[in-house]
Amino acid sequence: MQNKDYSKLALDMHENKKGKISLESKVRVENKDDLSIAYTPGVAQPCREIHKNKEDVYKYTSKGNMVAVVSDGSAVLGLGDIGAEASIPVMEGKAILFKEFAGVDAFPICLKTNEVDEIVNTVKLMEPVFGGINLEDISSPRCFEVEEKLKKELDIPVFHDDQHGTAIVVASAIINYVKLSGKRVENLEIVINGPGAAGIAIGKILLSMNVKNIIFCNLQGAISEDMEDLNWAQRNMLEVTNIRNEKGSLKDVIKDKDIFIGVSGPNMLTTDMVKTMAKDSMVLAMANPIPEIMPEDAKLGGALVVGTGRSDFPNQVNNVLAFPGIFRGALDVRAKEINEEMKIAAAYAIANTILDSEITAENIIPNAFNKNVVENVANAVKEAAKQTKVNRI
Amino acid sequence: MQNKDYSKLALDMHENKKGKISLESKVRVENKDDLSIAYTPGVAQPCREIHKNKEDVYKYTSKGNMVAVVSDGSAVLGLGDIGAEASIPVMEGKAILFKEFAGVDAFPICLKTNEVDEIVNTVKLMEPVFGGINLEDISSPRCFEVEEKLKKELDIPVFHDDQHGTAIVVASAIINYVKLSGKRVENLEIVINGPGAAGIAIGKILLSMNVKNIIFCNLQGAISEDMEDLNWAQRNMLEVTNIRNEKGSLKDVIKDKDIFIGVSGPNMLTTDMVKTMAKDSMVLAMANPIPEIMPEDAKLGGALVVGTGRSDFPNQVNNVLAFPGIFRGALDVRAKEINEEMKIAAAYAIANTILDSEITAENIIPNAFNKNVVENVANAVKEAAKQTKVNRI
Repeated sequence: MQNKDYSKLALDMHENKKGKISLESKVRVENKDDLSIAYTPGVAQPCREIHKNKEDVYKYTSKGNMVAVVSDGSAVLGLGDIGAEASIPVMEGKAILFKEFAGVDAFPICLKTNEVDEIVNTVKLMEPVFGGINLEDISSPRCFEVEEKLKKELDIPVFHDDQHGTAIVVASAIINYVKLSGKRVENLEIVINGPGAAGIAIGKILLSMNVKNIIFCNLQGAISEDMEDLNWAQRNMLEVTNIRNEKGSLKDVIKDKDIFIGVSGPNMLTTDMVKTMAKDSMVLAMANPIPEIMPEDAKLGGALVVGTGRSDFPNQVNNVLAFPGIFRGALDVRAKEINEEMKIAAAYAIANTILDSEITAENIIPNAFNKNVVENVANAVKEAAKQTKVNRI
Repeated sequence: MQNKDYSKLALDMHENKKGKISLESKVRVENKDDLSIAYTPGVAQPCREIHKNKEDVYKYTSKGNMVAVVSDGSAVLGLGDIGAEASIPVMEGKAILFKEFAGVDAFPICLKTNEVDEIVNTVKLMEPVFGGINLEDISSPRCFEVEEKLKKELDIPVFHDDQHGTAIVVASAIINYVKLSGKRVENLEIVINGPGAAGIAIGKILLSMNVKNIIFCNLQGAISEDMEDLNWAQRNMLEVTNIRNEKGSLKDVIKDKDIFIGVSGPNMLTTDMVKTMAKDSMVLAMANPIPEIMPEDAKLGGALVVGTGRSDFPNQVNNVLAFPGIFRGALDVRAKEINEEMKIAAAYAIANTILDSEITAENIIPNAFNKNVVENVANAVKEAAKQTKVNRI
C-alpha cells in the first residue's frame, strides 16, 4: 500500500520536474566583463596554471567536490538488469542525496555496457573532471572486479555503495547491538542470507571488526565447501567463513545464531526460525520493499532488535547514513582512496551518533535525517584518512 | 593589457569559487516522504516505465535538457594540446554559458585520450544521460572524424562548436554584409586564412549558402592542387574551392577579394594587403587574443566592415550567439541531429536579429548579450528541424 502510493507520487514528480538534477553556474554572466573572466580570454589563465601543475585542477575547477555516480543499470534496486536508461532515476536520486545531505556535487554516469573492462576504461577516461567515483547498482560479481580495477588505476576514491554503504550501516547496527545486548563481538554468531555484493561486503567488514563466526546462505542453504555453482567472490569468502563447515538449509543453520542479516528477498525468514535463534537475537531484514520477515513477526519469534531497509519501521538500514559523510570526508582531505580503516571509522561514527544511554532496541541506528550523522562520519573519515596517510591535504 | 587584467581576475575567481559549476537538486529531501518519492521505494516506478518504453527517459529524467561538453583538451583556445585536466576551466565555462544563455543543463566531459575511436566509444557508452553532445577544442582533422562517427552512431544531436558555431556566426556576418554592401552572394570572392576546424566549417556553410569563390590559405599561401602536406579534410575542400586554381602567398591572392576570414594567428594581414582588396571589403580577423589585423589598421586599408573575436571592438564573432539557441531549439523538438538546414537557419536568425534598417558597418553582428538572439535562433532551428523532419516532438 505504502509502496503503491509512492509509485504514483514518484511518477508524477519525475514527470513534472523532468528529472531531478540541474547544472547551475556559480557565477553570473551578464556582461562583457563577466564573460571575459568566466570564459575567454580570462579562462586561459587557470588553464595554463593547471597545464603547468596538474594538481591545480583541484584549485581552479569543480573536480574536488565532484563525484560520478556510475552504473551500468545491471542490478537496479530489486528490478535487476533494466539497462542504463532505466537506471537514470536512481542515479539522479543518488546525486541529489549527495548534494542535499553533504553538499557534494554528483553527476549520474549511466553506461551502455555490461563489460567490466569497458566500464573501467570509460571511467578512467572521464576521471579528470571527478574527485571521486561512486559505483552503484552493478551486478555481482562483476562489481567486485570493476571496483578493484578502478581502485588500482585511479588515485581518487572509488566506492561501491551497494557493497560498502550497506556494510558500514550494518556494522554500525552491530556495534550498538553489542552494547545493548552485552554480547562480545568475537562471540557473535551471524548468518548472512544473500551472498551478493552487499552480503559479501558485510562479511568482509565484520571480519575486519573481529567477528569470528559468519555463515553465508544462498537459496540452497549454508554455503559450504561441497557446494557447486559458487562464483569466485563467494569461494573467497568461504575460506574465511563457516569455520565449522555447517551444512543445511537456512532453517537448519539459523539455530542458536545471534544475528540474521538478510540481503536477499521477501519472506525468507519465519517466526519459527527466529524462535530457534540465540537469546536476545537481532534480525536485520533488508530486502526491499518486502523484507525477509516483517518486524512484528520477528519480534513474535523473540528477536530483541529488528531492522529493515524501510523508512516506516524503526532501525532503517539506509545507505544515506554512510555515503554522504564518507565522500564529504574523503573529498575534504583529498584522500587517494577510501580504505578499510575509513569505512570502519564511518561505522563507529554512525553508531556513536546515538549516545550509549539512548540505545534501545528501537534505536540501534540513527534516523536517516539525523543532522549530526554526516558531520560525525565526515570527521571520522578524515581522521582515519590522515592516520592511514591516504590524505593529500 | 586588457588580457593581462582578465588573467588575474579569472585566476582569482576560479580559485575563490573552486570551479564554476554545481549540481543542484530540483527537489528537496527533508523528510521520509521526500526520500520515498525522490529515491526508494518510489523511484522504482519511473525506472520501470523507462524499462518498458525507453523513450520515457525523456519524460522522467534530466536527459532531454542535458548536454555533454566533450573535449580531449587537444586544441584548447590558442593554447594547443594542454590535456584533459587543463581544459576543464574552458569546458566548465561552456557549460555555464549553456545555462546562463539558454537554460540548457550542460556537464563537462574531459577525456584522457586523443584516440578518435576511444573518444567516440566513450561518448557512445555515456550517451544515455545526455540529450545532446557538444564537441569542443578537439584538434583538426581528428575533430571531423570524431564528429562524423558520433553522428552516425548516435540519434541525439552532435555538434562540434569550434567548427559550426564559428561558421554560423561568420555566415550571419556575411548575410548582413551582403545587405550593407549591395554585393551578391554568388559573386563574393572570399579568402579563408587558416584551414583548420573552424576554417573548413566556414567554407562548408558558405558553399551551402551559394558562395562560389572561396580560397583557403595556410602559412605557405593559397591551398592549391600542387601543394603537399595537406590533410584529407583540406584535400576534400580543395575539390570545391579555389576554382581558378590561384597560387601564391596570402598577399598575392587577397587582391580583389571581397572578404578576408581569419581563423589563424596574430598579425597575418597588413594594411597594405587590405588596400589591394575589392572596394567595400570585409575583414573578419578572429585570431584570439591578437587578431590577424587590428581593426584600425584594417580600416586604414579601406575595409568597410571589420569584425574580430574580441569583445572590446565592434562586430564580435562570438560562438555564444549560436550554440545556446541551437541546442535550445534542437532539444526542444528532440531533434535527432543538427543538420545543415538547421545551421543555416541559425545563421539567418542571428543576422535577422538586426533589422535591415539598423545594419551598419559597426553593427553587422548582434551583441553577445542581445537577449533576442537565443529565442530567434531556437525558433528558427526548431522550424528547420521540423521542415527537414529530424524532430521527434
